[in-house]
Amino acid sequence: MPTAPFDWIEAQARQRRAAGLVRTLRPRAHDARRLDLAGNDYLGLARHPEVTAAAGAAARLWGAGSTGSRLVTGTTELHTRLEHELAAFCGATAALVFSSGYAANLAAVTSLAPHGSLIVSDADNHASLIDGCRLARGTTRVVPHADPAAVRKALAGHGGPALVVCDSVFSVDGDAMPLAALADACRAAGAGLLVDDAHGLGVLGDGGRGGPWSAGLAGADDTVTVVTLSKALGSQGGAVLGPARVIDHLVNTARTFFFDTGLAPAAAGAALAALRLLEREPDRPERTRAAALALHERLTAAGLTARRPAAAVVSVHAPSPEAAVRWAADCRAAGVEVGCFRPPSVPDGVSRLRLAARADLTEHDLERAVETVVRTAPR
Amino acid sequence: MPTAPFDWIEAQARQRRAAGLVRTLRPRAHDARRLDLAGNDYLGLARHPEVTAAAGAAARLWGAGSTGSRLVTGTTELHTRLEHELAAFCGATAALVFSSGYAANLAAVTSLAPHGSLIVSDADNHASLIDGCRLARGTTRVVPHADPAAVRKALAGHGGPALVVCDSVFSVDGDAMPLAALADACRAAGAGLLVDDAHGLGVLGDGGRGGPWSAGLAGADDTVTVVTLSKALGSQGGAVLGPARVIDHLVNTARTFFFDTGLAPAAAGAALAALRLLEREPDRPERTRAAALALHERLTAAGLTARRPAAAVVSVHAPSPEAAVRWAADCRAAGVEVGCFRPPSVPDGVSRLRLAARADLTEHDLERAVETVVRTAPR
Ligand SMILES: Cc1ncc(COP(=O)(O)O)c(C=O)c1O
Ligand SMILES: Cc1ncc(COP(=O)(O)O)c(C=O)c1O
Repeated sequence: MPTAPFDWIEAQARQRRAAGLVRTLRPRAHDARRLDLAGNDYLGLARHPEVTAAAGAAARLWGAGSTGSRLVTGTTELHTRLEHELAAFCGATAALVFSSGYAANLAAVTSLAPHGSLIVSDADNHASLIDGCRLARGTTRVVPHADPAAVRKALAGHGGPALVVCDSVFSVDGDAMPLAALADACRAAGAGLLVDDAHGLGVLGDGGRGGPWSAGLAGADDTVTVVTLSKALGSQGGAVLGPARVIDHLVNTARTFFFDTGLAPAAAGAALAALRLLEREPDRPERTRAAALALHERLTAAGLTARRPAAAVVSVHAPSPEAAVRWAADCRAAGVEVGCFRPPSVPDGVSRLRLAARADLTEHDLERAVETVVRTAPR
Repeated sequence: MPTAPFDWIEAQARQRRAAGLVRTLRPRAHDARRLDLAGNDYLGLARHPEVTAAAGAAARLWGAGSTGSRLVTGTTELHTRLEHELAAFCGATAALVFSSGYAANLAAVTSLAPHGSLIVSDADNHASLIDGCRLARGTTRVVPHADPAAVRKALAGHGGPALVVCDSVFSVDGDAMPLAALADACRAAGAGLLVDDAHGLGVLGDGGRGGPWSAGLAGADDTVTVVTLSKALGSQGGAVLGPARVIDHLVNTARTFFFDTGLAPAAAGAALAALRLLEREPDRPERTRAAALALHERLTAAGLTARRPAAAVVSVHAPSPEAAVRWAADCRAAGVEVGCFRPPSVPDGVSRLRLAARADLTEHDLERAVETVVRTAPR
């Protein structure tokens, strides 16, 4: 007698319960009065009236959906405009917009790492880069975290195309990749470099032009950048930025470009409005970075273990998954929403709170956040 | 001397040019006066004022983006409402919304096919199911197209979890999977069934409740359905529908759920409005199917080779990729937009035009479409 399908799920669920690793969804209300340090709306633009109005206007003008693949009906003039302005802002030649940053990473890695190529991937890379490596035809070598010398070694002696892939700012721990040294290692070996700047765009570089810009890599013909529209730009979607021939290659080969419906016009319109706001208000990124540094300084002064943030994300260590969950719940009960990361969502098995700074945090917000996180800390 | 990174792209680009397989983007204008038979807006809802107004209202109320993973800040009450109403409409116990149908398929396949499991995958499955199979820890066996007997054979003798994955309606050719016979084959072997109903939802079944509903599989505890919000519902996003324990398992294991920003509120709001419209106007699906059958009948009567449509998609064979491109361009020049599918976007290497029927096509639209496609046909 065969067992019922999906029965095996129960055993996994039991293990998760025993390990304190159960996830549940907590729907939020639109009028929730809480101090949000959990979201990735780094510039405070997701609810900016210009941005939300642009979403509505784009839906009215272009429709609620793009109605097809970007290769068929899913490319509107709005998508093209967003691509031009994103590329120009980041100093890239060309850009290609996807329905998510995840899809953009899958596209970039799979299309740039053909059969016979070597992919060198940082140990702490984002899941979407890792999935890209798994889907790509090339062979992946994982190297120790944030270690250009290890990358140099991994590349040595390889003939044929090679691609180095990494986050610019790591999403869980908030630390940065030394991009300039990494680019040197790539160039010495003739390897391409793919940087996921999901947490750099809008926060790092002149006026928020991102991690590759601040490392002097903007416009380089051997560097490709992925950005998301879902964090600093407060919307949804992702984009690959790079040399024209690379973008052309993606249009012709990337499965998540071919076989996915184009980004909804509302999301494209909102991202474009956010980008224009950022250009008009170039001090927002600096305010975000200052807020992150202030959070870090005050939390560590109070005795907590936190990593010095490279951009907006402050990671605070917790002694166990259970303690992290309780800590986050205590913060939430006090009206302060913080992220709680546990295995398998952390690269190193260490559970932590994740606090994201925003450009619109006030001194009072910072005080309240620090007071709450410190007061509720496990001891 | 190492070669410059990405130089290898040029050789591929040359091959594509030689084979007539170059893709270029054609941005469309919002006021383009054309008869659209290329998009997947099967019910004509993408530009419906109620749907686009709902997109704008959701952006204003909830923000332009969801600001984080569904597990952190990316679940709003709007997402939960959409999940409840989608599940209820399709007769499923629970639903989980993703940023795209592509991401939903990756999640469902990878989470339901653990190490040691067998995946049986139809030869013509959508790219996102195929990528799901590649990413999953289970072992994949590809079986001949739309062949429940072959599935039965592939499942025979396998111990441990097994998952059969298929489209309900195949996106390129528009033909249907015989779902009831397939479910029998799965049940005989104790295998789970995962149906991608991207082209069935809103078109097949009572009032558009989809392929699994019309095959009597709605609410079955051994069947999981993926739908997209980007076609009949005129928006963006995807969802997995199934037993509560399966949805719970996805919340706890699916990488494209954990590590992707939640669907933008505008897209969730638009999809919800479209779903409610569909419930109020249950004859839309029937109009779509009738329009597809009329297109098919008239095109084949005129001597073209077209497949009898199971839902909204009519696939018309072309003699070569070049001929297909020219044919589609001639239609476009005459104001009729049709899809043009060539390798590598077709499962069988046959280039074709793809015409998608819509509920809002008039008799005049149908006449114009048929006249144009027939007149411009290669001979
Ligand atoms: C480093 C990194 N890359 C890519 C992504 C995926 O972007 P998106 O959420 O827009 O799909 C994320 C976050 O979600 C991320 O943190
Ligand atoms: C059969 C099928 N499944 C899944 C998808 C992916 O859905 P989405 O475009 O919403 O990502 C598509 C189309 O794009 C499709 O045709």
